[in-house]
Amino acid sequence: MAVPAEQSAQTGRPTRADAVRNRARLLEAAARLVAQNGVEHVTMDAVARAASVGKGTVFRHFGDRSRLLMALLDQAEQGYQASFLTGPPPLGPGAPALDRLEAFGVATIRYLLAHRELGLAAAPPPERRFCAPPVAVRRAHIVSLLRETAAAVDTELLAESLLAYLDTALLNHLVHRRSIPQERVEAGWRDLLKIARSSG
Amino acid sequence: MAVPAEQSAQTGRPTRADAVRNRARLLEAAARLVAQNGVEHVTMDAVARAASVGKGTVFRHFGDRSRLLMALLDQAEQGYQASFLTGPPPLGPGAPALDRLEAFGVATIRYLLAHRELGLAAAPPPERRFCAPPVAVRRAHIVSLLRETAAAVDTELLAESLLAYLDTALLNHLVHRRSIPQERVEAGWRDLLKIARSSG
Repeated sequence: MAVPAEQSAQTGRPTRADAVRNRARLLEAAARLVAQNGVEHVTMDAVARAASVGKGTVFRHFGDRSRLLMALLDQAEQGYQASFLTGPPPLGPGAPALDRLEAFGVATIRYLLAHRELGLAAAPPPERRFCAPPVAVRRAHIVSLLRETAAAVDTELLAESLLAYLDTALLNHLVHRRSIPQERVEAGWRDLLKIARSSG
Repeated sequence: MAVPAEQSAQTGRPTRADAVRNRARLLEAAARLVAQNGVEHVTMDAVARAASVGKGTVFRHFGDRSRLLMALLDQAEQGYQASFLTGPPPLGPGAPALDRLEAFGVATIRYLLAHRELGLAAAPPPERRFCAPPVAVRRAHIVSLLRETAAAVDTELLAESLLAYLDTALLNHLVHRRSIPQERVEAGWRDLLKIARSSG
């Protein structure tokens, strides 16, 4: 029971609005599949079936499975980014920089662990680990807050070290392989900020 | 001009000593190739030619190219490990724990960057990033020194954060992609140790 795409009255061809709508429908179907069966069962085929479209349509919209998973994560990523860029303090603007950094680390640990299956499955290849857009946004945020603290440390390098702690693969290793409670991992983030506090 | 393996007088089959000798010869040939042409040109074929043996011999000894590269790195790794486990202070035993930690980080940054091509090429898959034997040795060393400092922090988690800074891919990104001088990266390691110093 394939749902026909709306078409432009002039050309008879799908419009840009159709494409946006169809992409959203495919993402909804994929998100449903992840929730139901786990990310390992989400294939291009399964998404096509769930959205009642041909497999070719899914490939046309996303290119490959990894990009589809990244697009799924992108929806959550937008909400997460909004929370620290424009949300209420202490995560958003309006609180002292160190309080914002503390809230940011805790929020990031929770966000990454909550989406860890998708995050691990959509992880970029090693050479792009430090350049992926979500990582670049986190880096810029940490650097800008560290500069506000005027801590007597190398801001850029401390940012890399803090950023390395906020890594899905590391958090997954700590919490799900070594069974370290998530609260303890969050407290570990506060420990790291002592560098900025003690020398500020 | 293949050099015939020595054979046991009793069985006519290669002895354990032959195997050890042959493995060493293959590793020498591979190391020569890395020095001459760079790691990207080291193939199982090239090593076989350079050591004047059949390609099958190289596969029999190492399984695949990644394991061959890891075995190459293993030789350097032994020397590096000996330097902090049994070498002279402040890297080896006999200096205060924090001095040893400082020397360890600097030595590790130099070691990883000096062998970065091989380190990147032989990197384990993401899921084994935190369990690879060389990483486990570094983790154990950091944890044991941090415990000696009696710093009022979560030793195990601070160790993970310090360990994440000593990562070939990160160091390569900082020094060779972002052109941060290596001396500055080494100073960044000293900054990180302030957490252990300030709360010790």
